[in-house]
Amino acid sequence: MSESRNVSYSFLGPTGTFTEAALTQVVEAQGKPWRAVNNVGEAFDDVVSGRSVAAMIAIENSVDGGVSATQDALASVPDLRIIGEYLVPVNFVLVARPGTALADVKIVNAHPVAYAQCRRWLESNLPHHGHLPASSNVAAAASLVESGQADAAIAPPGIEKHHDVVVLARSIGDNANAVTRFVLVSRTTTVPPRTGADKTSLIVELPEDRSGALLEMLEQFATRGVNLSLIQSRPIGDALGRYRFVIDADGHIHDERVADALLGLRRFSPQVIFLGSYPRADKQPIEFTSRYNDNVFIGARAWLRGLLGEPAV
Amino acid sequence: MSESRNVSYSFLGPTGTFTEAALTQVVEAQGKPWRAVNNVGEAFDDVVSGRSVAAMIAIENSVDGGVSATQDALASVPDLRIIGEYLVPVNFVLVARPGTALADVKIVNAHPVAYAQCRRWLESNLPHHGHLPASSNVAAAASLVESGQADAAIAPPGIEKHHDVVVLARSIGDNANAVTRFVLVSRTTTVPPRTGADKTSLIVELPEDRSGALLEMLEQFATRGVNLSLIQSRPIGDALGRYRFVIDADGHIHDERVADALLGLRRFSPQVIFLGSYPRADKQPIEFTSRYNDNVFIGARAWLRGLLGEPAV
Amino acid sequence: MSESRNVSYSFLGPTGTFTEAALTQVVEAQGKPWRAVNNVGEAFDDVVSGRSVAAMIAIENSVDGGVSATQDALASVPDLRIIGEYLVPVNFVLVARPGTALADVKIVNAHPVAYAQCRRWLESNLPHHGHLPASSNVAAAASLVESGQADAAIAPPGIEKHHDVVVLARSIGDNANAVTRFVLVSRTTTVPPRTGADKTSLIVELPEDRSGALLEMLEQFATRGVNLSLIQSRPIGDALGRYRFVIDADGHIHDERVADALLGLRRFSPQVIFLGSYPRADKQPIEFTSRYNDNVFIGARAWLRGLLGEPAV
Amino acid sequence: MSESRNVSYSFLGPTGTFTEAALTQVVEAQGKPWRAVNNVGEAFDDVVSGRSVAAMIAIENSVDGGVSATQDALASVPDLRIIGEYLVPVNFVLVARPGTALADVKIVNAHPVAYAQCRRWLESNLPHHGHLPASSNVAAAASLVESGQADAAIAPPGIEKHHDVVVLARSIGDNANAVTRFVLVSRTTTVPPRTGADKTSLIVELPEDRSGALLEMLEQFATRGVNLSLIQSRPIGDALGRYRFVIDADGHIHDERVADALLGLRRFSPQVIFLGSYPRADKQPIEFTSRYNDNVFIGARAWLRGLLGEPAV
Repeated sequence: MSESRNVSYSFLGPTGTFTEAALTQVVEAQGKPWRAVNNVGEAFDDVVSGRSVAAMIAIENSVDGGVSATQDALASVPDLRIIGEYLVPVNFVLVARPGTALADVKIVNAHPVAYAQCRRWLESNLPHHGHLPASSNVAAAASLVESGQADAAIAPPGIEKHHDVVVLARSIGDNANAVTRFVLVSRTTTVPPRTGADKTSLIVELPEDRSGALLEMLEQFATRGVNLSLIQSRPIGDALGRYRFVIDADGHIHDERVADALLGLRRFSPQVIFLGSYPRADKQPIEFTSRYNDNVFIGARAWLRGLLGEPAV
Repeated sequence: MSESRNVSYSFLGPTGTFTEAALTQVVEAQGKPWRAVNNVGEAFDDVVSGRSVAAMIAIENSVDGGVSATQDALASVPDLRIIGEYLVPVNFVLVARPGTALADVKIVNAHPVAYAQCRRWLESNLPHHGHLPASSNVAAAASLVESGQADAAIAPPGIEKHHDVVVLARSIGDNANAVTRFVLVSRTTTVPPRTGADKTSLIVELPEDRSGALLEMLEQFATRGVNLSLIQSRPIGDALGRYRFVIDADGHIHDERVADALLGLRRFSPQVIFLGSYPRADKQPIEFTSRYNDNVFIGARAWLRGLLGEPAV
Repeated sequence: MSESRNVSYSFLGPTGTFTEAALTQVVEAQGKPWRAVNNVGEAFDDVVSGRSVAAMIAIENSVDGGVSATQDALASVPDLRIIGEYLVPVNFVLVARPGTALADVKIVNAHPVAYAQCRRWLESNLPHHGHLPASSNVAAAASLVESGQADAAIAPPGIEKHHDVVVLARSIGDNANAVTRFVLVSRTTTVPPRTGADKTSLIVELPEDRSGALLEMLEQFATRGVNLSLIQSRPIGDALGRYRFVIDADGHIHDERVADALLGLRRFSPQVIFLGSYPRADKQPIEFTSRYNDNVFIGARAWLRGLLGEPAV
Repeated sequence: MSESRNVSYSFLGPTGTFTEAALTQVVEAQGKPWRAVNNVGEAFDDVVSGRSVAAMIAIENSVDGGVSATQDALASVPDLRIIGEYLVPVNFVLVARPGTALADVKIVNAHPVAYAQCRRWLESNLPHHGHLPASSNVAAAASLVESGQADAAIAPPGIEKHHDVVVLARSIGDNANAVTRFVLVSRTTTVPPRTGADKTSLIVELPEDRSGALLEMLEQFATRGVNLSLIQSRPIGDALGRYRFVIDADGHIHDERVADALLGLRRFSPQVIFLGSYPRADKQPIEFTSRYNDNVFIGARAWLRGLLGEPAV
């Protein structure tokens, strides 16, 4: 293991998962050792301990929403930084042991997130099935062969090349455009350079148990012209009704409007975790009105310094 | 089954689950047939088809947050109404087949929500374990006996009375005060009477993909003095960044301020689902400033009718 | 006087004022007796006592702002209604007794509002003049002849036809596009019909001495898509820092969004005075987004009645 | 005049005005030459030209509101700074030539602001009077003797000691607690030190003709916990519906929350005029919640610098 120290990349295994597909998009990871891990905790532990230089983890998908295990781990493991995001189209097949017909299927083995993404297809085609949860999309198919508990499994396309299964149905996902968003997480404190098509990820705890607090938090962004592409509530866990919010804001910490919004959040919230600024996977430049340009912020500071009799910088 | 039509109560089984414990709190359900079902879809199907008069389902817990399967089902199955809420303290034990020691445990079988609630204990005491998801807290323990896939299971206290397992550790939940909130769902359209300690549940879709829309939605409550005890984002599922919000608001639809907020929401949102007004489980009276009293709303309408030359009502 | 009861129209005299020019725009007033009065109090007293059917008064001009005497009188005299508005282009000449040269002018007699509108011209051309206030633009010129207190007067163009004065300078107003807005005030409670190009005038008292109250008041309009064309603070008069606001809102009380904003204001404010809905002088149709259409409000109420089990109306 | 250069103080004369009474409160002005001027323009001209070190001018009174001539002059004359504020209780007497009885009074000579403050008394006691405007409270009484135009005058108490008049009625102001607020204006750019009981005066132009702009401006204060004790709209003068706002905010530019609000305003508004930070006349310490303390702002900046990898300051 020592030779891979600080050069390997971790991902949620086994081989064949969508997470591995995301890692194939990372140029720097090619030709480096990859470590397949069992859960998000292990992935982050690799990063924190220095066993891996970075870990790829799923953070959101378009059908089931935020991946809460990832979001909660990012809120509790200190000193992590997101340095890139990657999108993987998500599709599913239903597979079974050779000789099984669709009409024979009573128990479907599937990772809960995959299961949620195929719910409508299953209700239409297998209305009386039972669900046996699996720990990964690949494990579901693999265990078909090893165990007799389930009759079929939900798996990624291509699984039949690696395991002795047959495909009963293709494209069983409820949304043909489904996509899962992955992030590459490391411990570096160097922020990737600003590209103009960036995203800033944050976790912000609300100060009090009242709806007004959320409204006030959103105003920190709105009054600086910063749009949000993700806002997800997560319970803090100590009492019902106490929340933190997982947020993706348009823009980069080197954008004046984003930096100023961070200042406002930090003053307002008992805890703000800066998870990083990084290029958007879709490379769409951020649009914002000219009144939130950098030079508007810089000009205002110069004006204030003038009023205070301070020297220009 | 016909004898139970419209009198039976459904719950997520098998016997011994926390959901069953919630149902024991429902006075009207005592002495009636109870139906143990396998998932939320089946529970709602019982209600919609008339097989059951109502179904008890978990909707939120203090550690893992909203139960997304329940929230999404409430958003898609029409004509459901929440008629009551119930709180169940949640605690967990780690059980194994007789003869197993804690040091022997490599694979832990657990329902994903229970697993999330014990994560810190597991990381401290079983840092290298793997997780095998189960379909319910009771099934996890039951399958220990039937299958050799897992070495231990997370289960509700008392499980050892019903299954041939031994307790390896007690109180392994990360939060000693953890509680799960359950709701009783039916198809009645009669709203339970106002008690002064009520809650109104809603699902509200945002009109556009922008942070300003959420801010505007929250203002519909804030400008009528209505506090929120739950706000949970859920992806609509058609594209990343499109959300609906699951909301619990303080107060009853018969409260003028709540009814007026509903009007505001309905005008603002492409879709508002009214899930019901019902007494709070904690029986805490709602507090609000006198400027949002019913008579303030009634007086304003009378004043406007006067201006418009309309007769008083 | 009895023959003019309820048919005469009052205006701030004497003959030749801009107020009289505004009254010439009122079709219904042509051929009726007109009463020239000395101040706003007298004009309103004519209306309240029934001596006149309506009174024309100046309410705002584009240079000096709201006419505070009018605004305060509207706030204190009950049961008045604005039934129309009229715009009069405002221009001024400087006049003097025959034989006076501009260089001789030391004291300028002028109504304070006219004086304010010519301030820049006066500072450039008569930097050392003194100001003697007059009670009307016409009185300023008239008193030149009667008294020797002033050397010149600011007056409306054409004044030289009625008084023995010469014009020293023309177009001395600081803004070539200056216009004064007049309103016709009566005691009728019948609101003029909705035209689609309407204005609603209000006086709203803030509940407390804090900036948040003003923000909250403005949100009553903003959350219903109602724009304001005038907002003017006026002290309530009992203590420094206590305000009421004179407001012109786009739209008609028969517009659902305006009526709903009125309800919100009435609930929020210790006092709301509805001064009337009437056609805009500029006949510009009100623009607003379709989400604030009447049928959105009507549809929301029907939806709520359905939830409450009330019959449709 | 040369000996008074830069040491004299200007005030709106003549001797006996409330403005002179305000100047007697200024410790530094005692023993220095005082210049009685005729209007606000002259007062500011003294300051700008260097003839006077400072000028005392009325800016607001509790009955009639902001003094618009002062407010507009502050908006247009550059480089002025308010360095102190002073309160003068305002009361009025009605005076006449010896031998006049109250029943004889037909025309009342009065400065428009004084007239407005006595309106209710006049309506009750002299319902049929006419108003002749005067250029100052003292001039009104003085002209009684010189001219026969008016029968009585509104004047400050004590006027009978300086002029040959008799008092017909005392305490005729509508509000027994009426007070006028004066400010001392200079050209210094040194801001008076922070006392904890300070006020900051601003003039802020709104960027566009819409109610949302005012709301957005107010949020710049509200989101920093800065209360406003004065907000007064003034037309910019180029078109109906375009406003600037005269604002007094609680706190000092050396308070972090005030400085940050100034930055926000400057970014938002096409023009912000900083008129000064100075001790409040009433010496009431500013109250604000601890979340807007200086160290919250300083701490947030240090946190952001840490994220950006910048050195601490």
